[in-house]
Parts: sequence; C-alpha cells; structure tokens
Amino acid sequence: MKLQPLGDRVVVTPTEDAESRTPSGLVIPDTAKEKPQVGEVIAVGPGARDDDGERIAMDVSVGDKVLYSKFAGTEVKLDSGEHLVLSERDILAIVN
Amino acid sequence: MKLQPLGDRVVVTPTEDAESRTPSGLVIPDTAKEKPQVGEVIAVGPGARDDDGERIAMDVSVGDKVLYSKFAGTEVKLDSGEHLVLSERDILAIVN
Amino acid sequence: MKLQPLGDRVVVTPTEDAESRTPSGLVIPDTAKEKPQVGEVIAVGPGARDDDGERIAMDVSVGDKVLYSKFAGTEVKLDSGEHLVLSERDILAIVN
Amino acid sequence: MKLQPLGDRVVVTPTEDAESRTPSGLVIPDTAKEKPQVGEVIAVGPGARDDDGERIAMDVSVGDKVLYSKFAGTEVKLDSGEHLVLSERDILAIVN
Amino acid sequence: MKLQPLGDRVVVTPTEDAESRTPSGLVIPDTAKEKPQVGEVIAVGPGARDDDGERIAMDVSVGDKVLYSKFAGTEVKLDSGEHLVLSERDILAIVN
Amino acid sequence: MKLQPLGDRVVVTPTEDAESRTPSGLVIPDTAKEKPQVGEVIAVGPGARDDDGERIAMDVSVGDKVLYSKFAGTEVKLDSGEHLVLSERDILAIVN
Amino acid sequence: MKLQPLGDRVVVTPTEDAESRTPSGLVIPDTAKEKPQVGEVIAVGPGARDDDGERIAMDVSVGDKVLYSKFAGTEVKLDSGEHLVLSERDILAIVN
Repeated sequence: MKLQPLGDRVVVTPTEDAESRTPSGLVIPDTAKEKPQVGEVIAVGPGARDDDGERIAMDVSVGDKVLYSKFAGTEVKLDSGEHLVLSERDILAIVN
Repeated sequence: MKLQPLGDRVVVTPTEDAESRTPSGLVIPDTAKEKPQVGEVIAVGPGARDDDGERIAMDVSVGDKVLYSKFAGTEVKLDSGEHLVLSERDILAIVN
Repeated sequence: MKLQPLGDRVVVTPTEDAESRTPSGLVIPDTAKEKPQVGEVIAVGPGARDDDGERIAMDVSVGDKVLYSKFAGTEVKLDSGEHLVLSERDILAIVN
Repeated sequence: MKLQPLGDRVVVTPTEDAESRTPSGLVIPDTAKEKPQVGEVIAVGPGARDDDGERIAMDVSVGDKVLYSKFAGTEVKLDSGEHLVLSERDILAIVN
Repeated sequence: MKLQPLGDRVVVTPTEDAESRTPSGLVIPDTAKEKPQVGEVIAVGPGARDDDGERIAMDVSVGDKVLYSKFAGTEVKLDSGEHLVLSERDILAIVN
Repeated sequence: MKLQPLGDRVVVTPTEDAESRTPSGLVIPDTAKEKPQVGEVIAVGPGARDDDGERIAMDVSVGDKVLYSKFAGTEVKLDSGEHLVLSERDILAIVN
Repeated sequence: MKLQPLGDRVVVTPTEDAESRTPSGLVIPDTAKEKPQVGEVIAVGPGARDDDGERIAMDVSVGDKVLYSKFAGTEVKLDSGEHLVLSERDILAIVN
C-alpha cells in the first residue's frame, strides 16, 4: 500500500532520533518556538501549479532527509509505520 | 440521483474501515492533529479556472482511493449512503 | 417582480423537502458539519470578471437543481416565496 | 450638493418600504442571516481598475433598483435625505 | 512646511462643519455605522503602482472636497492646523 | 557600523522634537488614532520586486525627512543612537 | 552535518553579543516593540519562485552579518551550536 501525494505534497517518515542529541549531531530544542523535526522523504507529489497552470518543479526528492515544522502536515499510519503528508512549503531545509 | 460537482470539487464515498487497522494496512491515528480519512472518488468536477479563465486539469479520477482531511468538505446523504463533497485541495494523496 | 443577480451570483428557490429523507432519496444530515441544502436556480448572473476584466462563464443555468451550503448567501422574500441570493462559489454540485 | 463616487462605489437611496411586505411584493426577512435592503441608485463611480490599471465597466446604472446587504456601505445624510455609499460588490441583484 | 504624500495617499483638511447640518446641506449621522467626514484635499501622492510597477492615476486632485471614512488615515497637526493623511481607497466620493 | 536595508526597507533616525510643537511647526497629536512620527532617512533598500522579479524604484532618498506611523518598524540602537528599520509602505509622506 | 535551506530560506548563526552594548556598537532594545537580533548567514536557499516559476535572486550571501526579527524563524541545534532557519523576508538589513 502506497501513498501518491497530490500537488506540492510529500510523504515523510519521521526519523526516530529527531528529538534527542545523537552521534549524527542533530538536536531539536524544546522551547516555545516553532519546533522542527527531521524525516526521510518517501514520496513526492507532481508539484503545485503556477498562475498559468504549469507545474512548479519540486525541490525535494525521494530519499532526501528533510527538516520540517513539527506542527505541519497530517499524520498517517500505514503498515510500514507512522508517516506525515506535508506541503513542500513546510519543509525548511534538506539535511546533508 | 447523482451529484455533478462544480469547479475543483469531488464527491467521495468514505471507506468504512478507514479508522481501524485493517488487512490492507491503513490506520488513521486518533490524536489532536488534523485527521485524515480514506474514501473512493465517485464524481469529479470540471476543474477550477486559472487567472485566464482556463480550466485546470483535475488530478483525481472516478474510482481513485484518496486520503483527505476528516474536517474538510460537506456531508451529503443520498440513497446510496453517506458521501462527502470536497475540494481537490483537501485531498492529500491517492492511495494505491 | 424579478431579481437579476450581479457578477457570479445566482438566485435559488430552496426545495421544501431538502432536510428529510424523501422518495427522491436526498437527505441532509443534521450534524455539526457545514450543512448543505438543495434548491432550484431561478436566475443567473452574467459571471464574475477575471484579471483582464473578461466575464467567466457560469457553470449553472436556470432550472438546475443545486446543492449549496445552508449558511451561504442572503435570504430574500418575494411574493413568490423565499429565495436565496448566493455566489456560484457556494454551490457545491448540480443534482441530477 | 452632489456626491460623485470613486472607483466601483455607488450612491443609493434606500427605499422606505424595504422591510415590510408591500403591494410590489418585496419582503426582507428579519433573521440572524445577512439582511438585504432595496434602494435606488442615484450616482455611479467610474469603476474599479483591473491589474493593468484599466477601468472595469460598472454593472449598475443610475435609476436601477438594487438589492444590497443592509450592513454594507457608509451612511450619508444630505438635504435630499439619507443615502448610502457602497461598493458594487455589495450589490446582490438588480430588482426589475 | 508641507507634506508630499507617497503612493496613493492624499492629505486632507477636515471641514469644520462636517458633523452638523449646515446651509450647504451635508449632515453626518452619529450611529454605530462607519462614519464619513468631509474634507478638502491639499496634497496628492503620485499614485500607487500596478503589477508592472506603473503608476495608477489618482482620481482626486488638490482642491477637491471629499467624503471619507472618519476612522481612516493618520492625523497630523501642522501650523496650518489639523490634517489627515489617508489612502485614496478610503475616499468614498467627491462632493460637488 | 552601518545597516544596508533589504527590499523596500529604509533606516530612519527619529527626530527628537517630533512629539511637541516646534518652531518648524510640526506637532504629533496624542490620541487613540494611529500616531505618526517624523524622522530622517539614513539608508534606503534596493526596492521590493514586482511580479516579474524586477525592482520597484524607491520613492524616498537618503536625507529625506519623512512622516511615518509610530507603531511601524523595528527599533535598533547603534552607537550613533536609536534608529528604526521600516518598510517604505509605512512611510506616509515626505516632509518639505 | 549541514542544512541546505529550501526556497528563500537562510540558516543564520545568532551572534552571542547581540543583546548588549558591545565595542562594535550594536545594541538591541528590550521594549515591547518587535525585537531584532544579529547573526551570521551560514547557508542560503536557491530563492523563492515568482509567478512564472522563475527563481528570484537572493539578496544575502553566506558570510553576511544580518539583522532579523527575534521572533522569526525556527531554531535548530546542530553540533556546531544553535542556528535559525528563517525566510529572507524576515531579514531587515545587512550589517556592515
């Protein structure tokens, strides 16, 4: 069972260790500020359309590790675990 | 009796088992987050219009299984059961 | 006495039996969700204008039975009874 | 003393009997919904401008009887009585 | 000392008798509705810019008597008295 | 140490006597209305971009005395004193 | 581990001494107004897209010292310390 996102949406698998300091070094602060989280992109939509109805190319690809707002998107549980469907606008950065 | 949706609206028949874990594997979490639901598309509008009044092609077709926000759209009961009229923007992904 | 709606507005005569199950089979649920209602279109505006000032063609015609949000539009009582002036955007679907 | 409205504004003289059933048959309901009112157009602006700065033609003319939202516009008292300056967007329909 | 307004702004000198019935006949009602006021235009900006960066011609000129919303704009006191800087959009009509 | 503002922002040095009547004659009222203030422009951004990404020319220059809303912008203290970074849209008029 | 920001976002390392008067002379006031902060840009996105889907050039570069609103953006802690991912629109000025 797979999700094919529409428009500029992507499906992300949250990375387990996103909220504690890890050997790879990423730590998410626990303050009153907007909270980011790290995940891996597993599906990418075809892109939103511009004013002329043309698709706008997506900036993320399947396999990218991305930083996104923890409060964005919609949670979905599949057999493969918990995923998130979110708009590319809610992705802050690609983590290298 | 049939509904012919206007603009970018679609008519969806919610899938009964959308909220519990099933053999097909989709489970919708019951948290404070925006809740998605699965349904089957039974009617598709002609598409919204862009700035020049041209129709924008729809990305879903009759028969597609789709994931959408549980709080989106308008409920309608027909003899064939309960349906939902919602905008294509509220559809998150096609479920394969 | 007649109403000629402006822009993308239409005048609708609400159908009496829109809120109870009828032989024709349409039933409107009475929940906390946005409530739809069925009516017949009795007048149609010339259409809104796009960015270049051109009229956008209307998708409903006089005589269409339409499904619309119960909370949309403005009620007007004429000698011929109670009517509703609403924007085409508030019409969800044509009922066949 | 006269008012020359700017943009898409019009000056309307409210019709006295707009809120009770009259021989001409128009009755305005007194519910919690948006309340319309009937008036006669006595002055019309040159029209708003589109994205290219071109005037958009007005759809109402001096002398038209119009239906408009009771809560729209700005009241002005002249020697000739009470008038309303409102945007054409707030006019729902022309009353024939 | 003079003010040269920017964009579509104008400088207006409120007319003293705008709020009571006068021989010239203008009376501003004192209700809960948006309150208009009369003033004389003493300076006019070069106009706002459209989507292509072109100036949009102003519809009011120095010397015009104008009707504007009492709650719009910013009060400025100069030696010549109290003035108002407001956007042309907040001007309802030219008073002849 | 200098600030080079981005987009349509300008850096302004508030004029000390902006809030009391002075020989030059400008007095800022102390009412519940939006409060303006006078300052001198000490740095100007390159201009915002229009829909095609082209810069829109700025209407103020370094050295201009300007009238702006007291509640707009962001205060910054440099060694040279207190300054304000604000968008050109928040500048009401050039004071001559 | 590095962050590659998307769209018009940039990654900034806040400068420690941004909130107290320093030899370099920048002091951030502690009032009820929007609070700015100084930081160094360590990564820059490819730019947002205009209406035609074309990239808009970024106005800041890696290494720039920038002034930004303290309440903007999303905090991220990496091994190299605390950073901020923010949109270029939230950057007020480049500090020279």
